[in-house]
Amino acid sequence: METEVNVELQRLAEVLRHSWKMVRTPRMKTILKVQAVACDAMRSYLKSEGFIELLPPIIGPVTDPGIRGAKQATFDYYGREYKVMSSAILYKQAAMSGLGKIFFMSPNVRLEPIDSALTGRHLVEFVQLDLEMAEASYFDAMAVAERLLSEAVNTVRDTCQRELELLGRELLTFKPPFKKLTYDETLEYLRMRGVKMRYGVEIPWDAERFLSKVIGEPFFIIDYPRGARGFYDREDERRPGILRDFDLIYPEGYGECASGAEREYRYERVLARMKETGEDPRKYAWYLEMLREGIPPSAGFGMGVERLTRYLCGLEAVWEARLCPKLAGIYSP
Amino acid sequence: METEVNVELQRLAEVLRHSWKMVRTPRMKTILKVQAVACDAMRSYLKSEGFIELLPPIIGPVTDPGIRGAKQATFDYYGREYKVMSSAILYKQAAMSGLGKIFFMSPNVRLEPIDSALTGRHLVEFVQLDLEMAEASYFDAMAVAERLLSEAVNTVRDTCQRELELLGRELLTFKPPFKKLTYDETLEYLRMRGVKMRYGVEIPWDAERFLSKVIGEPFFIIDYPRGARGFYDREDERRPGILRDFDLIYPEGYGECASGAEREYRYERVLARMKETGEDPRKYAWYLEMLREGIPPSAGFGMGVERLTRYLCGLEAVWEARLCPKLAGIYSP
Repeated sequence: METEVNVELQRLAEVLRHSWKMVRTPRMKTILKVQAVACDAMRSYLKSEGFIELLPPIIGPVTDPGIRGAKQATFDYYGREYKVMSSAILYKQAAMSGLGKIFFMSPNVRLEPIDSALTGRHLVEFVQLDLEMAEASYFDAMAVAERLLSEAVNTVRDTCQRELELLGRELLTFKPPFKKLTYDETLEYLRMRGVKMRYGVEIPWDAERFLSKVIGEPFFIIDYPRGARGFYDREDERRPGILRDFDLIYPEGYGECASGAEREYRYERVLARMKETGEDPRKYAWYLEMLREGIPPSAGFGMGVERLTRYLCGLEAVWEARLCPKLAGIYSP
Repeated sequence: METEVNVELQRLAEVLRHSWKMVRTPRMKTILKVQAVACDAMRSYLKSEGFIELLPPIIGPVTDPGIRGAKQATFDYYGREYKVMSSAILYKQAAMSGLGKIFFMSPNVRLEPIDSALTGRHLVEFVQLDLEMAEASYFDAMAVAERLLSEAVNTVRDTCQRELELLGRELLTFKPPFKKLTYDETLEYLRMRGVKMRYGVEIPWDAERFLSKVIGEPFFIIDYPRGARGFYDREDERRPGILRDFDLIYPEGYGECASGAEREYRYERVLARMKETGEDPRKYAWYLEMLREGIPPSAGFGMGVERLTRYLCGLEAVWEARLCPKLAGIYSP
């Protein structure tokens, strides 16, 4: 078993060592064209809804800590430690406080654990469509997410027939609104089908894949318990311990599409949550200063562009969805 | 004098320490809207010309060395040294070799020398529209650059009247083709106006600004001498020592808009040029392997989006053109 994994990793490393060549195959050219069509469709939709696109920040003194066991890329910035963004969520809140409805195509770097290289769904370097809207609830954010995704899927289905044929891919038609399962309902659904998991943590990838396979349409999982997510997901005041957040899940076993929430924007609450999750508030000086001065409540989400491409094109692995992909532990261009 | 600079730097550092607040001013909101309009106009134009937009690579084992005295941001990547892209030029060539006409909105990081913080034209973190086209000459690339810029300028002038008024900015109408001066003609032009500079190096910023002020319209400087540019700018076979490259310069003193060239794509020549410029070829293993296997000739350029925004909005300094800007030596969000 150990050996099989090693053989597979070595094969992958050999392919990626020449990743500059992959872009010449008809297959990858087709995939990248579909991706460009999907990005255009999403931009048009968001523009029509009054969102403004900003240039993404890719470095800063602090970045999102909520990255499930991955490490941050850290470099020397004139004598201090800066990070490459693992997610630009803190900057989204800053931008939203001025512009209301914003998004950026945000390149992120997460040094994932080595064993993520073979999951088919992890990249060290990826782009997410990262969106935030002022004075919005998580229901508002979900309404945008489901229409955004439907716009991408339906546009590709309608305008990329030749490409989809070449990839051997048939796409479902997406019709919002999507089904919503609470975290509790999801665990119960899993339990009744013999899949056991511990209450209070993120839903493991294999369980998520199982759900994604059996439910047969895109759906939301909402209302995660407090321990499962970052300090910026807002707790429901009438249901202590429950967060006003969501994941959007693809059908057909492709797993997570987007992850979002209403934000905790009150200084004292964020400070308390940071202490709870073991984050050092001193690292977040600028962010906490911003919260202390006050920002509007907001909601938003991030949607991985390579994972979207993987779904659209029916790819085995997400690394086929970008030029010169980086996988954990593999040195490649 | 020394003290004046320090006072100015401290004032700037104080402003940038609260850069998350700037986005709430009517001024910055207006600037970012103009920027979004310009980016949309450029995307539409490039799409209509058959270019495909890719997700930008932001990290890799090696990045562009030709960054005029700035340092690269380096981090630990599973035990090896990787860089944040100072320019993704090597990846553009890989992408072009498969897809022909490509571009991406490429976030770059350059740890500029401290004294760049007050020039008004340097950012540590910025985005360039980075473009490459297969089987093209530098004249083809200039034709795209001048139409691309005209599209951005004329669209903003026509559709952002209210924003330009608020900024107190009047825009010239840009009409391609733009004037072309060779490097030699440029030095002669400068000499006749009493501005002296050494032959064989990049044109210094103050001389460039002077030209940008007096010429009164956008123009190209072409045919730089070999010593002035990176190993990837192609030497003219009939004019040894002269590169087939260009800079595009804004009028009104705003300086450089874009920088581009025909590429040296032959393995032996690149190797020779690397040795000439003191680059260690071992660092460029994947790139040299790609060249040895063969890629098509190409031409392309990079156009800084914040500098474009600075021009469009008539800004004193480029740091007004993005959310949470980073300036050399200043610790800010």
